[in-house]
Amino acid sequence: MASGPQVSRRTALGWLAGGVAAGAAGARFGFSSGSGGELGDVAGARNLTGDEARAALETFVPGGVYDEYFIFSSGGHSGQIMVYGVPSLRLLKVIPVFTPDAWQGYGFGTDQGNLVLDGGVDSAKSNTLRWGDTHHPALSETEGDYDGRFLYINDRANGRIAMVDLRDFKTKQILDVPNLQTSHGGCFVTPNSEYVHISSMTPCPVTESGYAPLSRYKEDFRGFSTWLAIDQEDGRFDLERSFQIELPPYTQDLADAGKLTSFGLGFINSYNTEMATGGNLHGGHADPSKSLESAATSNDYDFLHIIDWQRAEEVVAEGGTRIRNGMRVVPLETATSEGILHFAPEPRNPHGVDVNPTGDYICVAGKLDPNGNVYSTERIRAAIEAQDYDGTDGFGVPILRLDSVLEAQVELGAGPLHTQFDDQGYAYTSLFLDTAIAKWSLGPKAGHGEGDAFKLVEKIPVHYNIGHLVTAEGDTVHPDGRYMVALNKWSIDRFPPVGTLHPQNFQLIDIAGDSPRMLSDAPIGNGEPHYVQMINREKLTHVIQVYEPGTDPMTWKRSPFAIDAGEERVERDGDEVVVYMSAQRSHFTPDTFETKVGDLLRLHITNVEQTPDATHGFAIPAYNIEASIDPGEVVNIDLTLDRAGTFAMYCTEFCSALHLEMQGWIEVAPS
Amino acid sequence: MASGPQVSRRTALGWLAGGVAAGAAGARFGFSSGSGGELGDVAGARNLTGDEARAALETFVPGGVYDEYFIFSSGGHSGQIMVYGVPSLRLLKVIPVFTPDAWQGYGFGTDQGNLVLDGGVDSAKSNTLRWGDTHHPALSETEGDYDGRFLYINDRANGRIAMVDLRDFKTKQILDVPNLQTSHGGCFVTPNSEYVHISSMTPCPVTESGYAPLSRYKEDFRGFSTWLAIDQEDGRFDLERSFQIELPPYTQDLADAGKLTSFGLGFINSYNTEMATGGNLHGGHADPSKSLESAATSNDYDFLHIIDWQRAEEVVAEGGTRIRNGMRVVPLETATSEGILHFAPEPRNPHGVDVNPTGDYICVAGKLDPNGNVYSTERIRAAIEAQDYDGTDGFGVPILRLDSVLEAQVELGAGPLHTQFDDQGYAYTSLFLDTAIAKWSLGPKAGHGEGDAFKLVEKIPVHYNIGHLVTAEGDTVHPDGRYMVALNKWSIDRFPPVGTLHPQNFQLIDIAGDSPRMLSDAPIGNGEPHYVQMINREKLTHVIQVYEPGTDPMTWKRSPFAIDAGEERVERDGDEVVVYMSAQRSHFTPDTFETKVGDLLRLHITNVEQTPDATHGFAIPAYNIEASIDPGEVVNIDLTLDRAGTFAMYCTEFCSALHLEMQGWIEVAPS
Repeated sequence: MASGPQVSRRTALGWLAGGVAAGAAGARFGFSSGSGGELGDVAGARNLTGDEARAALETFVPGGVYDEYFIFSSGGHSGQIMVYGVPSLRLLKVIPVFTPDAWQGYGFGTDQGNLVLDGGVDSAKSNTLRWGDTHHPALSETEGDYDGRFLYINDRANGRIAMVDLRDFKTKQILDVPNLQTSHGGCFVTPNSEYVHISSMTPCPVTESGYAPLSRYKEDFRGFSTWLAIDQEDGRFDLERSFQIELPPYTQDLADAGKLTSFGLGFINSYNTEMATGGNLHGGHADPSKSLESAATSNDYDFLHIIDWQRAEEVVAEGGTRIRNGMRVVPLETATSEGILHFAPEPRNPHGVDVNPTGDYICVAGKLDPNGNVYSTERIRAAIEAQDYDGTDGFGVPILRLDSVLEAQVELGAGPLHTQFDDQGYAYTSLFLDTAIAKWSLGPKAGHGEGDAFKLVEKIPVHYNIGHLVTAEGDTVHPDGRYMVALNKWSIDRFPPVGTLHPQNFQLIDIAGDSPRMLSDAPIGNGEPHYVQMINREKLTHVIQVYEPGTDPMTWKRSPFAIDAGEERVERDGDEVVVYMSAQRSHFTPDTFETKVGDLLRLHITNVEQTPDATHGFAIPAYNIEASIDPGEVVNIDLTLDRAGTFAMYCTEFCSALHLEMQGWIEVAPS
Repeated sequence: MASGPQVSRRTALGWLAGGVAAGAAGARFGFSSGSGGELGDVAGARNLTGDEARAALETFVPGGVYDEYFIFSSGGHSGQIMVYGVPSLRLLKVIPVFTPDAWQGYGFGTDQGNLVLDGGVDSAKSNTLRWGDTHHPALSETEGDYDGRFLYINDRANGRIAMVDLRDFKTKQILDVPNLQTSHGGCFVTPNSEYVHISSMTPCPVTESGYAPLSRYKEDFRGFSTWLAIDQEDGRFDLERSFQIELPPYTQDLADAGKLTSFGLGFINSYNTEMATGGNLHGGHADPSKSLESAATSNDYDFLHIIDWQRAEEVVAEGGTRIRNGMRVVPLETATSEGILHFAPEPRNPHGVDVNPTGDYICVAGKLDPNGNVYSTERIRAAIEAQDYDGTDGFGVPILRLDSVLEAQVELGAGPLHTQFDDQGYAYTSLFLDTAIAKWSLGPKAGHGEGDAFKLVEKIPVHYNIGHLVTAEGDTVHPDGRYMVALNKWSIDRFPPVGTLHPQNFQLIDIAGDSPRMLSDAPIGNGEPHYVQMINREKLTHVIQVYEPGTDPMTWKRSPFAIDAGEERVERDGDEVVVYMSAQRSHFTPDTFETKVGDLLRLHITNVEQTPDATHGFAIPAYNIEASIDPGEVVNIDLTLDRAGTFAMYCTEFCSALHLEMQGWIEVAPS
């Protein structure tokens, strides 16, 4: 079996496995001496090393026992969110967000689906956006800790943001954020979910037509940092209370919210402060030096954007905004003059910005610089207070003096990207080029005295090309220090070949001891995760398994179209045929109805069951109609019958022994 | 932690775990006596029973070691195929089939995507079918064994079938099968992949308009058994060499192909030989007795359809067909008169029909009958030869005498559905209502003498409501007898709650020993699997990881639009802008181009890399354009530019440290 990769793994790549087979020298964790016992025999028979056998026992979760943590993972350009259990790393659910899905989503042709998917799309975009690029999930917080209520995620492609309700694990709202074309800087939530932040990535033309030539990039393009206020009842975005801050046309990258000592601040990295626009093919000749990767990396420093959102609230309340596409915008000059926006230099083309649990340290990793750069909240606040500036950028934004705000630089390795934290004052930074994670200590405010502050402790190899990483509760004020997951972009040789597109690779690492221990690899076969958050499962206290009878999941109220069993009926009014249908094991009622070409069919289907897991599907295949209807749920479908035929409809979810008999017919007579 | 379910599992449900905690009496496999050794300590610390600890060690697959088997699983109304490793049950890949997908599929707006997804849709259906209901995957075979070349799967919703190439694990063809509205009876392949079979489920009107009132069900509706010939080079369906056999308007259910002694025969179950059409709401009153579940279960027997496809080939060659919607159809009266079609009575509303590895036994499980019903190939052939009939059905099809063809009945339990096989002459039948698997012995032709033939051996509890099941290589002439997987429809309490839609539950069972042993539960969080096939991974010898430079995956040839690096160009011809673009870490060339509203943009993008895993994405977000471009692949996109703007385009697949800089702009000036 698989001799090539097995050999290479055990000889060349065997970091934690110790490069040896079971029982041999070098494994950290051997079998017991002597016979090894029955478990040792089983492990030996499968050629597991001692460390692998230990990891097997540490990650196995029997049926009926629940994983300790949930991971909410972006799916990248799958457009969805994946939910995994930890330590098993089993895929528990996919939550469809930006891409239609027939099984676990709002299906095809339902009013909920249309409502969610078409959520206020910008007129500059196709009005049928049917995919997204999910990047950074953000769980709602209370006092800086995850509270298990809501989950937000950005669409990097289209500058949109979505809200998932953690009661039913369904997407309730997609918002096309005004004035954003694309977005990367978000989402993050502020410590009490006052706001969800999302900023533009590539700036967009602010001209009337939405068009501007690239030659007018500096003049006519702008970025926007968006602070979306949250309705605390239903988790939705409240545009009336939201605002944006206009930014220069740099490329705004990742972002994070201040917490505790840095509460009230937000931080956004940027790159391409060169304002390069590409143009690598001119006169028929390719010129790679004109590509953005070259032209946007010529400055030594880009700018960490520091935003005082509490100050912004005051300015907004005082009317210091103008309205642009329905959004209140603080103009760049106001943001500058009112102390809302400051810059600090950061090594060129940074990627991650992450605030430590105490809020004191802002860790910036510049992918072209080997250092972890630590800015201090105390220093930033003092420098702002003292107007300790090193001039302004080309748009008048004051630049804080680097020496005044930088607390430490720690050489970590090649290609540092993102940083997470444990409960012992250590930081963990992904090293894309080193394909490793650096564990390093923070400073005095995280419990490390002068002697051991800001020091690289250890590097943990991963496989391969790590992007983000996450620790348990790692973005909160109380990380657990239990598990870490490496989100590796490449997986060459770690999994058997499955064609030209390879899975990603999640690697689970135990960080509870002094030295991190690699536990397991998990192929990610249905998306390209960028970031995840890991929450203790016991915090998901709001989750339900059955809706109240007749619930509209969009409102959480009884649907005006709900029926109870026995209330089924067909109402006809001219060309409109309104059907109030029930679904119950193993029949739809009514299961047949007569219509004619040209009729508008309005279906209101109530799953009248209250048994957990008693989901029914409903399909009219020929008309591309499909809905998944959970117990207690009401689904509405409008359908213009434009073709004659006698069409089968059926239950698409195996529900009972007589599931196959749960079908019916729609007669559409020629008109 | 999960106290409720843990307690209930360990006290009430603990079949294999022995109902006790680690080390206590009752577990089949305890820790070693004395200290238990270090592994025992680890298992004990996690509260694993001895059997669970053993299962952990038996299912853990370290990174770089490859799973022994692949499972290809239908996704149900997700419309896709999932690929899992066994024994780890990790999801290695999702292969998009009937539903668009941005990450691993042909994306949005690509010519390949349109070509595949729009494959010849029947005019009676919406011309934009964008979901399917995958049910029964069928691996291609040579001499009755899986050969790792192609994979077929049916769309139960729309009567379609798809072909996946196991070189690149991508869908190459979707065929809307003529004369089928919905389909369940398939797919299966004949032993040398001569044909892939797919039959109709609900019959469809055969009137000119496609409409017929249900009152004319018997007269105007018909089913069709379809034998799709396969191009042995590219795996595609060859309609010229294919044919159908007209069937009565019963509901044709699952099907299987004969093998070895039954080579040349095909078997299809049926139900609703009552020809009930529903109608459970009349005059405003619901009448459940009129539902199909009642009306279609009144006959004691339905009909096993026995089709002699070799005889059909002869009749077809002799011109005994008529053409219907482009397909050669053997009329029902011809099928009957020429000995192509026979019926055998089977207990009412059967579900699974499965031919054992030697081809001698056809196992039919009727979900309303507690028996496994075994028909014998020898008896069937003799009865046909002797015209040993018990009359004909209402359409003139001869009915073989039940006593003559039935070899044995074995009482298995409540709700038997599907049967699989091992290498020792045992059959395994899923029991939906018992929520268990029955292991039972076949007869002398499978190696069991008179004393132990056709006997129930053991029942294996599963959790819960099992539908299909599969054994390793279980549909071939050489099952491995190593692993079995139960495909459970419900998962109540086995996994932590994730909202109102629950995952399904795959359970892995070791069947190599005398008594099957439950190993692990795997939540299925992204689809509703119906059936899977399990293949030894080493048989997947055709899989590639990189395309030859400039490959069109639809033809496997160099695309006429391919370029090598350095050949990038933009050609303008009136309103047509043709761009030959390369993608390479970390830039597109060209990365900017100027167009105007009204232009037709024709993009030909070549990923000029040859490194495994060096996939690039390409998106023009505002226009809902997204493609995933694997190394060596060419993707073509046509786009009418209907809105002014300056639009970002970017690489959607994290490819390098400077991935974020892999972006560009399209200027669309107002015209």
